[in-house]
Amino acid sequence: MKKISENIPGYAYGGEAVSKSSISLQELEQIKISVGFTAEDERYLRLAGEVLGDQTKQIVEHWRSGIIANIPHLARHSRSPEGNPLPNYLGASNQRFQQWILDTCLRPYDQTWLDYQQEIALRHTSLKKNQVDGVQSTPHVPLRDIIAFIPVMNETIKPFMAAKGHLLADVEKMHLAWCKSLQLQISLWTGLYAKLTPNEW
Amino acid sequence: MKKISENIPGYAYGGEAVSKSSISLQELEQIKISVGFTAEDERYLRLAGEVLGDQTKQIVEHWRSGIIANIPHLARHSRSPEGNPLPNYLGASNQRFQQWILDTCLRPYDQTWLDYQQEIALRHTSLKKNQVDGVQSTPHVPLRDIIAFIPVMNETIKPFMAAKGHLLADVEKMHLAWCKSLQLQISLWTGLYAKLTPNEW
Repeated sequence: MKKISENIPGYAYGGEAVSKSSISLQELEQIKISVGFTAEDERYLRLAGEVLGDQTKQIVEHWRSGIIANIPHLARHSRSPEGNPLPNYLGASNQRFQQWILDTCLRPYDQTWLDYQQEIALRHTSLKKNQVDGVQSTPHVPLRDIIAFIPVMNETIKPFMAAKGHLLADVEKMHLAWCKSLQLQISLWTGLYAKLTPNEW
Repeated sequence: MKKISENIPGYAYGGEAVSKSSISLQELEQIKISVGFTAEDERYLRLAGEVLGDQTKQIVEHWRSGIIANIPHLARHSRSPEGNPLPNYLGASNQRFQQWILDTCLRPYDQTWLDYQQEIALRHTSLKKNQVDGVQSTPHVPLRDIIAFIPVMNETIKPFMAAKGHLLADVEKMHLAWCKSLQLQISLWTGLYAKLTPNEW
């Protein structure tokens, strides 16, 4: 499986420390149907993974430095409680963010993926945020802001999908598959937040 | 304000029976920032409202008959507990669905709009589903399926936005504004579901 580097700090995909998801594969299959996620979408996500493979650093930098850094209520989640930068935390989290782009495109959405979805969600709640990095920062990221940031990611990733000269029709299909996947993930996260930390909306 | 007909069954926008939203205008403003919702998006939503104004019936029919009707776990929410059609319920709900398209495009996102967001969300939970129509059907619509259906609506509404011969760049901007608004609404609904009925994910 393609990784952005051999050693991504705190990246535990498929590891023993990752608990089994409280959402079942059967529930996942039903959400896939609701979102209209098909085998064609899987194929176009694989293509997107190839196209984005060497651009993940730029993409995440655009999101973090170009957008999030300018929105105080979002930027604070990778800063200290006093609002000071935590460069190591941000750096590690950015590497995982990069890898998440590849995992979204290239991983099969199986039990291991579902379990890691829960792990990622947990790491945005007070149950696990800051732990793997050993930092002090905001206790959780409100779900509402995670949900709201999806269209921003959807919009801004599209030019990167078009950057390798693919036909517009193929870029559109890559993008559609990406949008479906992100909403599928949001649907899962919402369930996990509601089950685990209902007050962290 | 443009309405699809003078008398929409159960449509209570701005009415006295609608409670004040448990989400504040201040929280709404912050979510708007997270989603990147700007004055330009408002303008393009107004344009979308003009373009879609006489197409809402076709759009909702496409969603209901073309898509939802073929997905049993979604179709059941407008049927009886035994799975029989409830044409009056479906008809009334479809009219409100049509009007929601216009409200999304044309209403200012003020306290009245926020309050009605809560009313609509409530009507998908066990607290209020079926009540205004006086029917027996599923007790609630799982939030995960509402979230997951968003990309389907986003994808399928785009051709309707392009149907009046607007420049592709304008269609793209209408569509982007629409996608942001729907995710903004999902962000609100998630909060309302979590506060009101945390187990109905």
